[in-house]
Amino acid sequence: MTANWEPLHSVPASQASLTGGYWGARQRINRTVTIPAIYQQLERTGRASAWMLRESDERHDHRIVHKFWDSDLGKWLEAVGYSLMSQPDPELERLADGVIQAIAAGQLPDGYLNSYFTVIEPDQKWRNLRDWHELYNAGHLMESAAAYYQATGKRVLLDALTRYADHIDERFGAEEHKRHGYPGHPEIELGLVKLYRTTGERRYLNLAKYFVDERGQSPHYFDIEATERGEDPRKFWFKTYHYCQAHKPLREQTTATGHAVRAAYLYAGAADVSGHTGDSTLLDALRLIWDDLTSKQMYVTGGLGPAHANEGFTFGYDLPNESAYAETCASIALVFWAKSMFDIDPDSRYTDVMERALYNGTMAGVSYEGGHFFYANPLTSYPYVNPHAHFSGINTAKHYRREEWFDCPCCPPNLARMVANVGAYVLSHSADTLYVHLYNPGSVRASLPGGQVRIEQQTDYPWAGDIQLTVRLDQPAAFSLALRIPDWCPGFQVRVNGSTTGADVQRGYARLTRTWNDGDTVELALAMPVERIAAHPKVRHNAGMIALQRGPIVYCLEEVDNGAELANVVIPRGAVLRADVDNALFGGVGVITGDAIRSVPAAWSGGLYQPQRVLRDENQPVTFKAIPYSLWANRQPGEMRVWMREG
Amino acid sequence: MTANWEPLHSVPASQASLTGGYWGARQRINRTVTIPAIYQQLERTGRASAWMLRESDERHDHRIVHKFWDSDLGKWLEAVGYSLMSQPDPELERLADGVIQAIAAGQLPDGYLNSYFTVIEPDQKWRNLRDWHELYNAGHLMESAAAYYQATGKRVLLDALTRYADHIDERFGAEEHKRHGYPGHPEIELGLVKLYRTTGERRYLNLAKYFVDERGQSPHYFDIEATERGEDPRKFWFKTYHYCQAHKPLREQTTATGHAVRAAYLYAGAADVSGHTGDSTLLDALRLIWDDLTSKQMYVTGGLGPAHANEGFTFGYDLPNESAYAETCASIALVFWAKSMFDIDPDSRYTDVMERALYNGTMAGVSYEGGHFFYANPLTSYPYVNPHAHFSGINTAKHYRREEWFDCPCCPPNLARMVANVGAYVLSHSADTLYVHLYNPGSVRASLPGGQVRIEQQTDYPWAGDIQLTVRLDQPAAFSLALRIPDWCPGFQVRVNGSTTGADVQRGYARLTRTWNDGDTVELALAMPVERIAAHPKVRHNAGMIALQRGPIVYCLEEVDNGAELANVVIPRGAVLRADVDNALFGGVGVITGDAIRSVPAAWSGGLYQPQRVLRDENQPVTFKAIPYSLWANRQPGEMRVWMREG
Repeated sequence: MTANWEPLHSVPASQASLTGGYWGARQRINRTVTIPAIYQQLERTGRASAWMLRESDERHDHRIVHKFWDSDLGKWLEAVGYSLMSQPDPELERLADGVIQAIAAGQLPDGYLNSYFTVIEPDQKWRNLRDWHELYNAGHLMESAAAYYQATGKRVLLDALTRYADHIDERFGAEEHKRHGYPGHPEIELGLVKLYRTTGERRYLNLAKYFVDERGQSPHYFDIEATERGEDPRKFWFKTYHYCQAHKPLREQTTATGHAVRAAYLYAGAADVSGHTGDSTLLDALRLIWDDLTSKQMYVTGGLGPAHANEGFTFGYDLPNESAYAETCASIALVFWAKSMFDIDPDSRYTDVMERALYNGTMAGVSYEGGHFFYANPLTSYPYVNPHAHFSGINTAKHYRREEWFDCPCCPPNLARMVANVGAYVLSHSADTLYVHLYNPGSVRASLPGGQVRIEQQTDYPWAGDIQLTVRLDQPAAFSLALRIPDWCPGFQVRVNGSTTGADVQRGYARLTRTWNDGDTVELALAMPVERIAAHPKVRHNAGMIALQRGPIVYCLEEVDNGAELANVVIPRGAVLRADVDNALFGGVGVITGDAIRSVPAAWSGGLYQPQRVLRDENQPVTFKAIPYSLWANRQPGEMRVWMREG
Repeated sequence: MTANWEPLHSVPASQASLTGGYWGARQRINRTVTIPAIYQQLERTGRASAWMLRESDERHDHRIVHKFWDSDLGKWLEAVGYSLMSQPDPELERLADGVIQAIAAGQLPDGYLNSYFTVIEPDQKWRNLRDWHELYNAGHLMESAAAYYQATGKRVLLDALTRYADHIDERFGAEEHKRHGYPGHPEIELGLVKLYRTTGERRYLNLAKYFVDERGQSPHYFDIEATERGEDPRKFWFKTYHYCQAHKPLREQTTATGHAVRAAYLYAGAADVSGHTGDSTLLDALRLIWDDLTSKQMYVTGGLGPAHANEGFTFGYDLPNESAYAETCASIALVFWAKSMFDIDPDSRYTDVMERALYNGTMAGVSYEGGHFFYANPLTSYPYVNPHAHFSGINTAKHYRREEWFDCPCCPPNLARMVANVGAYVLSHSADTLYVHLYNPGSVRASLPGGQVRIEQQTDYPWAGDIQLTVRLDQPAAFSLALRIPDWCPGFQVRVNGSTTGADVQRGYARLTRTWNDGDTVELALAMPVERIAAHPKVRHNAGMIALQRGPIVYCLEEVDNGAELANVVIPRGAVLRADVDNALFGGVGVITGDAIRSVPAAWSGGLYQPQRVLRDENQPVTFKAIPYSLWANRQPGEMRVWMREG
């Protein structure tokens, strides 16, 4: 059941300096635009000051204060923490310190820490773990506490959260006198593992494991607490515990199920627990779920969860494009899970998906300028009825656009923390192997037993496949440098210090094992052709269609470049497709151009349906231009398509 | 503004005897299975006895008694009335008489007649016309009263409903002392016109006109009554009065808007009002809306309203197949509206659509056996998440199937009344012209100034295009016989008494003007090729696809005949398509067969996405079999598609 293992080590964002390229630019925008913009929204909506509310305040109003406000603030603080690691900013730190002071001041003497249930409904604490997000909020605050402490060395938030963790640990657990509860919305598992890693306190890891283990057991905790509230458990508003992955114990689950963000947070937290406890039974279940997710339920963008109704999964090969939910947070959670899986089961099957989600499904969630956000990420977009407003705008055909904020604004601060922390996803290492997952200009430091290693990268990735790595060492050291050969790459070459080298590819990584000297160079050349991607024949939505991908980037066509009625643009199978960098676009991004056919029945008389015999097809030759999917909806509003008809 | 006209005359179902063929069979099933099955459901759910409820009863429970129960009973009684016209059935009549007795006994001394607001919330009468369906219920009961009186000569229900109409007329209208209200769900307009036609009481017509005229005027009645209830009108649960076509006066409306059933009932009622009042301004608006609906917002099946959110319309060319709502009731309402339009503006553009909706969009709503019903009618069906149960079954992929009943069971009794009354849609006539709309074996009688005319038909329509009509007269009479030449028909021939005759086609009808003698025969031969139908290039969902149609019948492919993964079946443009009647299927129905290609990448490795360069297409030649769309989901559950990829 248990093995003697520890997960691979990540490096904190403080040891990664992504000085340029794709992530350098995105981190700059994140720091200068996104993080400040989110703070303004936290202020505007009262979240930043929610801790100062008192029951007598006029603003004390259920419609204003959400039960999950703390999570928004937590994610923002976490983003600030990561950002400060790579870029000191006294003004930002002062702002964060003020928020932290208010949070700490709001902690109750027994350690309880939640703005809503302290101020608004103080007698309702812990009465509904299924729906009321207390443990979820706690988890996000724990993650922020760990990050902020790592960044600044300041203990105020960390101390508050360890006290809160202690409080929760006293209340929930396997012991007779404790409640056998667990969160309706997983997240605290991730937070507790980070507290464990930061403080070394094993109780936090054990509590995370308890939450994973107890989930879905019988008698069912959500039934018990509902009955205690005087409710009929069968009248659960979502009807089925599949929604929150609590329909049965996780070790018995085999498919990605329910609300996609809840699912991926749970799986990521369980992977962390598996790694630190050596529990291989969890890993076995997670592998099955991973296979189901990535072979049957994932968009080509790394988007998860097609359905609006449950914000999540439906069934295998059900991947509608236009109505895709594919919540930004779900792709972010997939990044977390993928990295956690790699660190206990090193294989590029995880980091390839991580890269796919990073460059496509997550980054589509934020505007190029950094101040607007998508919640849902469809793969086809037409004039449109807003899926978030079931009962409004029904007759107003408009284009789907990023917004400054949402009533439930989980995605913006989630993006902010992910981008600020992307340096932590560049590599993993054991005592003798350094795995490089992501290619981007900059440097990352890692501590191996033989001393500090710094890996410098120069590359135009993801727009070109050549990467030059330089190893920086205080003294020569023997270790394996394992470079990810992405699943999209049909061929590669490696040169070490200028000489072509055969590389042993194991589980997707080209391993270079030697005694490295300071200044050694590795040149990795990844072939990066434009690929026409086909979807599995069971994906009915993509039958007869292709998506364009080059490197890790999935492309799309937009109306602004290609005119409207993109459904009538057909890319012939033999068309030559050209990849370029368009320096006039978004600071220089890859584009794909080629010849296509626009099929328009020229004799169309204006009626809605016509016998084909009266029509005469006119196939106009056109050229098309595709841009990275993540950058759509940054110019004039219009149609967008990832999957194009193939002729 | 007003013209001196009267609408064309319809004939009551009592003068139409559809002895065989398509409608003969459907009426037999309707009478022997559907009408009794619905009564059982009315009994089981308490609707049949709702009028006997008293406030003290245990069953008096808001969750049990709906505000629109009376409409379900009304539609059933109306169906019984039409059925009795063509087929006496003492047992059924006894059952109906009992229900009518209970309804009449439930009428309040002032004429008020509504089970819910008499028994359950007696102090809430007329407080919310926007949402509470009182006038809607009244309308359905009026329609049933007219039908039942015509069928049986019994006045109990008619007298009750004229008293109720008087009561409503005293309360609502333009006069200062009356309320300036109108229904949130149109329907009473149709009922009042039928009361007017039955009793000759012009006040009922005037009241129908008032409801049409007042709709959407400012100050807005729904705002006024909401304020009176102490509610903020802006907090209307649907947010916009577009939903109920009350966002502006009907004469200013130009597009089919909002909830599709409400819309089409309103338009049908307004057409009736326009006809009887000679108000051409209404007709002008209705023509614009008709054009918008049929040229931009109608499924090829005659289904209306793509969206679940509003059970209705969105915007032009937005016609998704798999998620189509296309409520059965909406197609039924379209049949009503089309007939009403023809009768004031005789043109086959209306009756062609009527026929399309009759054979496809409406009849898909009932199982071949007659006891199960569809509410929504998608044009593509795969394993599926029930759209009516947003929060259940999310992870249970199942096939969409007809059900015995619904919480809101508007569709089953609506189908029953339409099928029972289909004889009334066979023809319209003026003093000198007899328009034949529908072709079906049987006979229809009409009273022209020169005497009674009976038109007998022999035909295998809709499976063949040859129709033999025989004119039966007591004495020779001069009139025009106008035979509809359907829009799907590329060519026709007419022979009168065996001799080919040139026919003057005016507004879609071949007019044969002469002095007719008893026994004169007309042979109409309509060419009925299999057509590949293309949708307008702006309908993105159908780009690169065709639908198969022959005569008025739209066909579909089902998994039971063609295997699964129908998205991978491609019908080559040159494929020969053959029409046959399959006598082993559903008592003998048309089928279309042909050669197709099943495109399956043979080298598919099992992953979800693959570069096309590693795949090898395998195009298997297959034969396909298509059945009438209306008959889908009557055999083994499986996939279904109307729109097929074309190669």
